[in-house]
Amino acid sequence: MSGNRAVAYKEPGKVEVIDTDYPTFELKDGPGVNPANIGRKVPHGAIIRTVATNICGSDQHMVRGRTTAPANLVLGHEITGEVIEVGPGVEFVKIGDIVSVPFNISCGRCRNCKERKTGICLNVNPDRPGSAYGYVDMGGWVGGQAEFVLVPYADWNLLVFPDRDHALEKIMDLTMLSDIFPTGFHGAVTAGVGVGSTVYVAGAGPVGLAAATSAMLLGAAAVIVGDMNADRLAQARSFGCETIDLSSGEIADQIEQILGVPEVDCGIDAVGFEAKGLHGGGEAPATVLNSLMDITAAGGALGIPGLYVTGDPGGVDEAAQKGSLSLSLGTGWAKSLSFTTGQCPVMKYNRGLMMAILHDRVHIGKNVNAKAISLDDAPRGYAEFDAGAATKYVLNPNGYLDAA
Amino acid sequence: MSGNRAVAYKEPGKVEVIDTDYPTFELKDGPGVNPANIGRKVPHGAIIRTVATNICGSDQHMVRGRTTAPANLVLGHEITGEVIEVGPGVEFVKIGDIVSVPFNISCGRCRNCKERKTGICLNVNPDRPGSAYGYVDMGGWVGGQAEFVLVPYADWNLLVFPDRDHALEKIMDLTMLSDIFPTGFHGAVTAGVGVGSTVYVAGAGPVGLAAATSAMLLGAAAVIVGDMNADRLAQARSFGCETIDLSSGEIADQIEQILGVPEVDCGIDAVGFEAKGLHGGGEAPATVLNSLMDITAAGGALGIPGLYVTGDPGGVDEAAQKGSLSLSLGTGWAKSLSFTTGQCPVMKYNRGLMMAILHDRVHIGKNVNAKAISLDDAPRGYAEFDAGAATKYVLNPNGYLDAA
Amino acid sequence: MSGNRAVAYKEPGKVEVIDTDYPTFELKDGPGVNPANIGRKVPHGAIIRTVATNICGSDQHMVRGRTTAPANLVLGHEITGEVIEVGPGVEFVKIGDIVSVPFNISCGRCRNCKERKTGICLNVNPDRPGSAYGYVDMGGWVGGQAEFVLVPYADWNLLVFPDRDHALEKIMDLTMLSDIFPTGFHGAVTAGVGVGSTVYVAGAGPVGLAAATSAMLLGAAAVIVGDMNADRLAQARSFGCETIDLSSGEIADQIEQILGVPEVDCGIDAVGFEAKGLHGGGEAPATVLNSLMDITAAGGALGIPGLYVTGDPGGVDEAAQKGSLSLSLGTGWAKSLSFTTGQCPVMKYNRGLMMAILHDRVHIGKNVNAKAISLDDAPRGYAEFDAGAATKYVLNPNGYLDAA
Amino acid sequence: MSGNRAVAYKEPGKVEVIDTDYPTFELKDGPGVNPANIGRKVPHGAIIRTVATNICGSDQHMVRGRTTAPANLVLGHEITGEVIEVGPGVEFVKIGDIVSVPFNISCGRCRNCKERKTGICLNVNPDRPGSAYGYVDMGGWVGGQAEFVLVPYADWNLLVFPDRDHALEKIMDLTMLSDIFPTGFHGAVTAGVGVGSTVYVAGAGPVGLAAATSAMLLGAAAVIVGDMNADRLAQARSFGCETIDLSSGEIADQIEQILGVPEVDCGIDAVGFEAKGLHGGGEAPATVLNSLMDITAAGGALGIPGLYVTGDPGGVDEAAQKGSLSLSLGTGWAKSLSFTTGQCPVMKYNRGLMMAILHDRVHIGKNVNAKAISLDDAPRGYAEFDAGAATKYVLNPNGYLDAA
Repeated sequence: MSGNRAVAYKEPGKVEVIDTDYPTFELKDGPGVNPANIGRKVPHGAIIRTVATNICGSDQHMVRGRTTAPANLVLGHEITGEVIEVGPGVEFVKIGDIVSVPFNISCGRCRNCKERKTGICLNVNPDRPGSAYGYVDMGGWVGGQAEFVLVPYADWNLLVFPDRDHALEKIMDLTMLSDIFPTGFHGAVTAGVGVGSTVYVAGAGPVGLAAATSAMLLGAAAVIVGDMNADRLAQARSFGCETIDLSSGEIADQIEQILGVPEVDCGIDAVGFEAKGLHGGGEAPATVLNSLMDITAAGGALGIPGLYVTGDPGGVDEAAQKGSLSLSLGTGWAKSLSFTTGQCPVMKYNRGLMMAILHDRVHIGKNVNAKAISLDDAPRGYAEFDAGAATKYVLNPNGYLDAA
Repeated sequence: MSGNRAVAYKEPGKVEVIDTDYPTFELKDGPGVNPANIGRKVPHGAIIRTVATNICGSDQHMVRGRTTAPANLVLGHEITGEVIEVGPGVEFVKIGDIVSVPFNISCGRCRNCKERKTGICLNVNPDRPGSAYGYVDMGGWVGGQAEFVLVPYADWNLLVFPDRDHALEKIMDLTMLSDIFPTGFHGAVTAGVGVGSTVYVAGAGPVGLAAATSAMLLGAAAVIVGDMNADRLAQARSFGCETIDLSSGEIADQIEQILGVPEVDCGIDAVGFEAKGLHGGGEAPATVLNSLMDITAAGGALGIPGLYVTGDPGGVDEAAQKGSLSLSLGTGWAKSLSFTTGQCPVMKYNRGLMMAILHDRVHIGKNVNAKAISLDDAPRGYAEFDAGAATKYVLNPNGYLDAA
Repeated sequence: MSGNRAVAYKEPGKVEVIDTDYPTFELKDGPGVNPANIGRKVPHGAIIRTVATNICGSDQHMVRGRTTAPANLVLGHEITGEVIEVGPGVEFVKIGDIVSVPFNISCGRCRNCKERKTGICLNVNPDRPGSAYGYVDMGGWVGGQAEFVLVPYADWNLLVFPDRDHALEKIMDLTMLSDIFPTGFHGAVTAGVGVGSTVYVAGAGPVGLAAATSAMLLGAAAVIVGDMNADRLAQARSFGCETIDLSSGEIADQIEQILGVPEVDCGIDAVGFEAKGLHGGGEAPATVLNSLMDITAAGGALGIPGLYVTGDPGGVDEAAQKGSLSLSLGTGWAKSLSFTTGQCPVMKYNRGLMMAILHDRVHIGKNVNAKAISLDDAPRGYAEFDAGAATKYVLNPNGYLDAA
Repeated sequence: MSGNRAVAYKEPGKVEVIDTDYPTFELKDGPGVNPANIGRKVPHGAIIRTVATNICGSDQHMVRGRTTAPANLVLGHEITGEVIEVGPGVEFVKIGDIVSVPFNISCGRCRNCKERKTGICLNVNPDRPGSAYGYVDMGGWVGGQAEFVLVPYADWNLLVFPDRDHALEKIMDLTMLSDIFPTGFHGAVTAGVGVGSTVYVAGAGPVGLAAATSAMLLGAAAVIVGDMNADRLAQARSFGCETIDLSSGEIADQIEQILGVPEVDCGIDAVGFEAKGLHGGGEAPATVLNSLMDITAAGGALGIPGLYVTGDPGGVDEAAQKGSLSLSLGTGWAKSLSFTTGQCPVMKYNRGLMMAILHDRVHIGKNVNAKAISLDDAPRGYAEFDAGAATKYVLNPNGYLDAA
């Protein structure tokens, strides 16, 4: 086992499958590795043979050239795999286990991890709290859109599926546990979704569809998804959502037609900083949040899984370039709204969602239209996804998904 | 409108439809009325023409003669109706509104009501916190298994359905909002049920089935219902529950066959003090709680909507007669279990559950096998229910349900 | 009792004591009364003889001419008094009761009130959820900086003190229950303050001092208050806070000197939209929130009791005039911060805080430097407060405070 | 370093200081070690030189012969120390760190640890969830009333004090973080104590005093402690509690004299199964819980840190011997009470409580009357504590406390 084929960012608009080194229990130097992390020993790690690894909307930020990601950065933070080697510090995870890898890397030893805030672990990224595989400025942990990947703190990070065969049978659902299903669920939970809630989800991409699925699983009475992409809206309708075509009228009016009132209890932003203006004219990063404040009822909450960044060299204006948004906070204040931002702490939710999948209570793979493609087809997957395909692309580097 | 036909308790084992007075905005003397409540003015009340009113398991405690209920006590605390008169202090509820009446009467002015603890309102029952319609020792508010009933503090207590036609269409579901659906839901919530939970519900009567329905609505991965009544277990299976026949083996073993482990995350007691011993031999009031402590995993919680009483003249022994139970608390303590008892505060949940019904997300009427019968058939309904019919009897005193 | 002397807004920078009508159980036309509220019957109301009524920072927004408040609007929403008349719909509150009046008026009958969200009651302000006495665009309920005031829905709204003598003894503390103590407490609670937290409070005005007091009562390890007003900072130090003079260096640096780390667990904005820039140059409405995002640790929360408005004709620029703020949301998102805005729902907290006062566990009057002045001195009180006095002015229209 | 002097249980009523082996990074066979744990490797462990180690009431259960503890079991689960060696799997804890050791041992890798339920860790005790140092049937981890002790999963378990000198200065407070302070705090939190609560604490031993201290820190309005030991009651009064002498009248009456009402919001059981009858006559294991149900107001909660066991060979009757209690659950149910049992998950609270201590906001050492004694004096400490001394004995095996 001396090689490891992997998807790498090359330049704006371009990814490529490259040959890289097979992982060892050490974080070696490479594109995007934080200097303070180079040479870090990982005896607590496990090496995973990838079963499924998905292309994520946040990968697209890098690929579109909106970040400082270096060339040859190996991408991929949505990883499900089989454990094939464990370091000497691993005690409970076993070789042969089929596991889900939370996209946020965490140590299981710091204050934040002890408080279940694994999205802002203090020990894995020398620059700031929080980390992820294959992502710019996140510490340099190598991405998992590859045949093999190293997972540190394996006993802590890995969610072991109870039964191998059952797991492989449900793999197109379970692969969503590494990121988008918990991320959408976190959006719904922090938006206050409960039994009987009315919910508006901004954005019908995979995270939006996962948030909508989550809202339903949490017992929402009505889940309304808004987007401008007809295919993605059709996907939302396929599992019982109402939909709003943002290009055909005001959101509040369309909500009123559906619910009888022009507002919802809970708002979810599954778009983030690359939001488009509702009435044309390119990016308008504050649009989604401002419209959510408009259509969320007094006393409601906004869950904000959509990514907002501290710096965006490609932003539409100076404010956007430094991550400032012009927000109608007065509107929100008058309505006593609350707001929750940030990476989803995956470990808080992935076990419960796994149980719901394994007991056949939710079909997230179908809801996001998961589609397996080969590792070599990754560039095509990135391109189609960027073009707005209503599809969640799942890479299949080792053939496990051939049957799925 | 000078009369009001109503179901009354006569003597142990016997209920009868009797003629009583049409209600006025005053609580008059009558069977079971607390002396301190006699003559109480109710300008804040509404008079309701009953649309649907259900027979409840807790009515059976009285009818079986297990309480000090006086003869001619008008029964019924599960009431849905149409507002036909309002007192001068009513401002928001309107004549013609179709409304659900929470079984617990509350004032909306005391500390507990302000804290949403409407099951223990301080102002409606002179004897102790908490009250209900048509129930012994609960203040003397007249029951609603009748053509008409007075609801005090109407603006506070009543849940108004948004649309009359839609409400009447869904009436066999909505009628469960007055008691058993919120009661079962409270059991599930206080047992800690969430997305992915495994749940055991003790008892497949209407409250048990409502708890099981609630657990599913809350996203439970697996809901297991235990009983000794085959028809009721079949009813539980009809909407996706697993079931355990208590007469055919240990609960833990049967759970293990279903889940692979002999325990669940959450336990719900939908039986209460009239529990039967698992191995024959009559009542064994602590059986359910002790078995729940056995099969609930460490760190779990027990929701206890099943009724336990302070005094039970018909109890099996002296301890039972004064409401004492022999509980294996050491087992619970070693597992760090928590326990929640008491009446469900209906108003905390009924609006959300209504929304879930109206948006077609749950079919509680079907799940509990709701069946409309005439007021005159109430005695038969009581008898069949007491005999273990897997049916929730819904009285139809004014013909509204003829179409349903 | 035919008259009622009251403090009224006259024009920017000017308030005056005027003669108005003694209240009746009806909301009559007058300055600022919403047309849809004119003639509204209030049989559920109580007439209060004012014991203490405080000048609030949010009154200053009107007096400074930052709103559309009409001339002769009677001011005052911080009211404590003695019940001297009750309407026919009042059942539990008694004449002679000494009571605290929550500044937010609520009905106790709508969905939001039932959910304890009394700051956004649906039934008292025809324009939008939420209301208050003596405030522009809040429905037109007459203010309480007066000898007498009408309180609607008295059984719901009023907090009755258990003992008259004890209440009058503690009146300079209890008068803070109508607004600033719960408001500061809400800020602390929603900022996540708990036992052992480190807290930064932006603003050492009365709300900031109340938030700091609340943080201590909640068990915070360290409470740091920042302002540019030396007297107010001295006031904060008087009860154990650390302080930061914003004019003498970066906040993060000063926090680091105090705590050893440049950040806190919890941030509270007790300033709002009239924030001054830290480095001179007039108003900078987003300054406080942006600096709180900087100095609150990842995973923390921001409580935002400081008022932000939907429209501010006097705003520094076009964005400010429509209530838009330029917020570094990317910074907040990277740290997974959450934000809670809006009026404090006073009834959620006032009873507990009253108990803490009556049992001598907190001395809020002393902490905010409460000072009783006569009604006639109100104009002077407004002026001194506006000039930055480290004093909370308490009006004494009926002499009850002469002994205090 | 070849020896390790330690306090061991010898026989009912007798402890002795014995010579044992200096710990290594392996759990070796010895008195009370679970066979499945013998030879367990502990590369993730740290060896601690004990700074302070306290005698606990639960040690007394063993010493009184109420358990199956074997002779020569090394006692002690309340440990604070200095790290002197770390295993190869330790990454963040450093030699020289002064640390608090939570009494419950946990792995930081299992489902329960990930959910912060460290009192019921699944991986440290082969018999059942949950473990502790030096305790019968808890896995066999060697006790810490010794010069040295091994702490497994050191990066997870240990709370590192930020500053050595500051820690040693506050050591008589900080030593309470290993058990009784968090345990009392957990009792208060699970009893629902918040700002303004009224609280009754059953038992004025160290855990009761810690619960009372915690209730105050949480902002309780009034904290009432009941016991029959005058010295311990005096100790409770020394920091502001009200007290009740159980031998001089009914609890409810005495509460009414203090509060004006015969009930409290929150009840804490800091006694457990060895409760004495209130009216003489030896042990009455259900007395405390039944009296708490009597005097806790409807809607309240009971926190139960007091230990209840699954088997008690020394119990007063057959029911007690198998851990069954005769509980008036009907009383609790009528009042909608809730109950929380079990070991305190120390790691949930110890950091916040440490912060409160280090910032001088609470003086737990003084409140429980902590007293340092030499290791050799341990037998005297056990005897005096068993005789009812109002003292918390802190052993000082290595002289660190000589200055304290």
